[in-house]
Amino acid sequence: MIPPCDMLVFGGTGDLALHKLLPALYHLHRDGRLPKDMRILALARKSLSRAAYQALAERHCRAQVARADFDADTWQRFAERLDYLAMDAGQSADYGRLARHLGQSCQRGRIYYMATAPDLFEDIAASLGTAGLVTEDSRIVLEKPIGHSLASAQAINAAIGAAFAEPQIFRIDHYLGKETVQNLMALRFANALFEPVWRAGHIDHVQISVCETLGVENRGAYYDRAGAMRDMVQNHLLQLLCLVAMEAPVRFDAEAVRNEKVKILEALKPIQGLDVRDKTVRGQYGAGRIGGHDVPAYYFEKNVDNDSDTETFVALQAEIDNWRWAGVPFYLRTGKRLAKKTSEIVIQFKPVPHHLFKGDEANRLLIRLQPEERISLQLMAKTPGKGMHLEPVELDLNLAQAFQQRRWDAYERLLLDVIEGDSTLFMRRDEVEAAWQWIDPILQGWQQHYQSPRSYPAGSSGPEQAHSLLELGGREWLG
Amino acid sequence: MIPPCDMLVFGGTGDLALHKLLPALYHLHRDGRLPKDMRILALARKSLSRAAYQALAERHCRAQVARADFDADTWQRFAERLDYLAMDAGQSADYGRLARHLGQSCQRGRIYYMATAPDLFEDIAASLGTAGLVTEDSRIVLEKPIGHSLASAQAINAAIGAAFAEPQIFRIDHYLGKETVQNLMALRFANALFEPVWRAGHIDHVQISVCETLGVENRGAYYDRAGAMRDMVQNHLLQLLCLVAMEAPVRFDAEAVRNEKVKILEALKPIQGLDVRDKTVRGQYGAGRIGGHDVPAYYFEKNVDNDSDTETFVALQAEIDNWRWAGVPFYLRTGKRLAKKTSEIVIQFKPVPHHLFKGDEANRLLIRLQPEERISLQLMAKTPGKGMHLEPVELDLNLAQAFQQRRWDAYERLLLDVIEGDSTLFMRRDEVEAAWQWIDPILQGWQQHYQSPRSYPAGSSGPEQAHSLLELGGREWLG
Repeated sequence: MIPPCDMLVFGGTGDLALHKLLPALYHLHRDGRLPKDMRILALARKSLSRAAYQALAERHCRAQVARADFDADTWQRFAERLDYLAMDAGQSADYGRLARHLGQSCQRGRIYYMATAPDLFEDIAASLGTAGLVTEDSRIVLEKPIGHSLASAQAINAAIGAAFAEPQIFRIDHYLGKETVQNLMALRFANALFEPVWRAGHIDHVQISVCETLGVENRGAYYDRAGAMRDMVQNHLLQLLCLVAMEAPVRFDAEAVRNEKVKILEALKPIQGLDVRDKTVRGQYGAGRIGGHDVPAYYFEKNVDNDSDTETFVALQAEIDNWRWAGVPFYLRTGKRLAKKTSEIVIQFKPVPHHLFKGDEANRLLIRLQPEERISLQLMAKTPGKGMHLEPVELDLNLAQAFQQRRWDAYERLLLDVIEGDSTLFMRRDEVEAAWQWIDPILQGWQQHYQSPRSYPAGSSGPEQAHSLLELGGREWLG
Repeated sequence: MIPPCDMLVFGGTGDLALHKLLPALYHLHRDGRLPKDMRILALARKSLSRAAYQALAERHCRAQVARADFDADTWQRFAERLDYLAMDAGQSADYGRLARHLGQSCQRGRIYYMATAPDLFEDIAASLGTAGLVTEDSRIVLEKPIGHSLASAQAINAAIGAAFAEPQIFRIDHYLGKETVQNLMALRFANALFEPVWRAGHIDHVQISVCETLGVENRGAYYDRAGAMRDMVQNHLLQLLCLVAMEAPVRFDAEAVRNEKVKILEALKPIQGLDVRDKTVRGQYGAGRIGGHDVPAYYFEKNVDNDSDTETFVALQAEIDNWRWAGVPFYLRTGKRLAKKTSEIVIQFKPVPHHLFKGDEANRLLIRLQPEERISLQLMAKTPGKGMHLEPVELDLNLAQAFQQRRWDAYERLLLDVIEGDSTLFMRRDEVEAAWQWIDPILQGWQQHYQSPRSYPAGSSGPEQAHSLLELGGREWLG
């Protein structure tokens, strides 16, 4: 069914490869989902024998995979797929060696996974092209960040596009591989109940929050140049916004779905000039306590500038200028070192137009991605006994309980999509660029108006101003 | 707050009084809900001392009330409210004695509860009037059956109405005292989410089922003259239909709510002539097995005619001729000796207009009154893993779990409403008569076309024809 292909992982000794990709591939192998003779070739500069790489991979997989899912026999068969080649991906001379290593297998489909630093993306694509390693059956997989602005994203996309045609390019956003995110599409388009009220007339506002308790960890060097806006908002949060807001696609396929998402990105009302001050909030964590431990301020983190003004928190109010959503605020919020780890989407409906009973509150649909996958609908119900006293109750669905099977990691789902050539859940070039087009003026506004990030204590709910942003509209952050 | 009043229970030694009213009054007393000096005067023909009646009442209350809720001290104080007077409610001469017994308390508000055979309602009302026992502060409480046809219901209402003004008359339907039934109003009018889809454009059909496993028990003499249509459909099922279908009332008060319910009853499309054959199904249970026991056929039950053609089961397809509901079938079903005891309302939504994913089913809202109080919304969700495979999941709310407190019995709620003078949950004269107006032609149609009940085995799901009724529309009974 699936034509034979191999996967080549650039950055084969890096965290992404060892912590995410190999465990995901192991699970797919174990479930019998990988093409029968698919080989996995890890590439990195370090000089390692094949056996040494297999041992390295085994150690990491053992740590990542649940004990019940890991057994020596299965690993042995998986390890037979694993190969390693030491090469410098930045040296075009090394690609001849790669071609020779691949040998006859050049005729097979090939998936190039860019698990490297992003500044190598353009060189690798060009070298693969020059070495004749890009055929019709080749695919390339990239992960964020794709650029740090519209212009740089266009440059990367152009360089990749010189070697690969757009349908061969898989821009991964692992948020789209999460079950709950896909359930958002099922919820919207497989349930007739919500569509009639999924619009400005009935929805008061939408909240999309991705809150982390972790700090910048080992990513200081990258993060201090990027910040939360580029690292999270431009990709994950805007993708979630697209899935909440998009019209029903003509079909559930890559082009139709992505056409609708691009329409949303293009309909985002620009935030520019002085609007930047009113509709966005930047924050940076100071010292504080999380989980009973003292944690340092952002500017004391490893590889971070002592006087950094990079934001580790963003809250903003977006609006979508189309018939369905005109006038409905979409509040986005993301940050590091916040009080609790949670990713959720809240659809806050409008109150009933006429209050028959006292105490009724507006309905709310909660779609939680983390810490647990959950859909919950807050309704008003009568409390038992005399009179019509109302209280909010939750009609609740814990997805893990509803479907009692191992949850696929987002990477499993997305790697299988790459192998099968389904790019529905991957970002098309115009999506990435439309997102940057909207993000750029905000970044520029911050610079032009010298808008330094507001400090917030680690372990708090972010800067005060993020709350004011909603309070001005008579609203508050939920959850 | 509540002006002083007493309650007089005609039929004070009957099942309704001993099994339902006194336990409900005990609970209200225990919760401090009864007016401080309210007395309860039981009336019946049997010659009993006050102490003997108190002992009789105690025995029944002990049996009905949960052990944790019953204690001797509370009972002692409750029993002080209890009095008994032997009288023949059919003898107008006895009412002078009643007046003397009441003595000075004639100036207090008085609630007359008709817990007697219905053929006494008219006489009692007339005698109370003649004896000067009906003042502005008097109320009368009646329970079904109120007549067996429009004409007889009008006669009873006229007789009661000669002594009591309409706002003094409380026609009880204990279904309306159930928490879930009132929650139906909260669900509809305190939640903005449902109103936009609560109409013909979005709802495929509605099912209202009240299924019993019990047979006719000790009620053969009454039941064999009434049948399921008069005993259940004319009151309970049509009341549920009204609450599902009515427009939002102007206010949540007695007149506004009942105005809307009457509008629905008046909008019911008449079923008459040959339509009776196509849109209604009569059934009568034959011998069968329930819960592992053999049970006899209806016509062998105590006090039932050997060749009875009374129906113990009704299924019918109603339609409401108004803007909101035109074309939406309301399937009603009730019966005795069915496979399981359940009372529920199913709102079956229409399928999505355009199927993006395979296997999606239409949404469904279930409101269950029995065996447990539950609201559950069936949605489609994605199953974990590859692809977009859908499965129905239930967002579920068990009301007893959500509100962990003792559930009021329907009679507690309704008796308190009577004491407080709130008739929102009681049937107004025009409601009762509008219901009969719609029922009468069906009963006549059955007679005119000699439509005998179809036999169904006890323990089954009713006669075959009840299934065909829905299958002809491509539907099926749910639950």
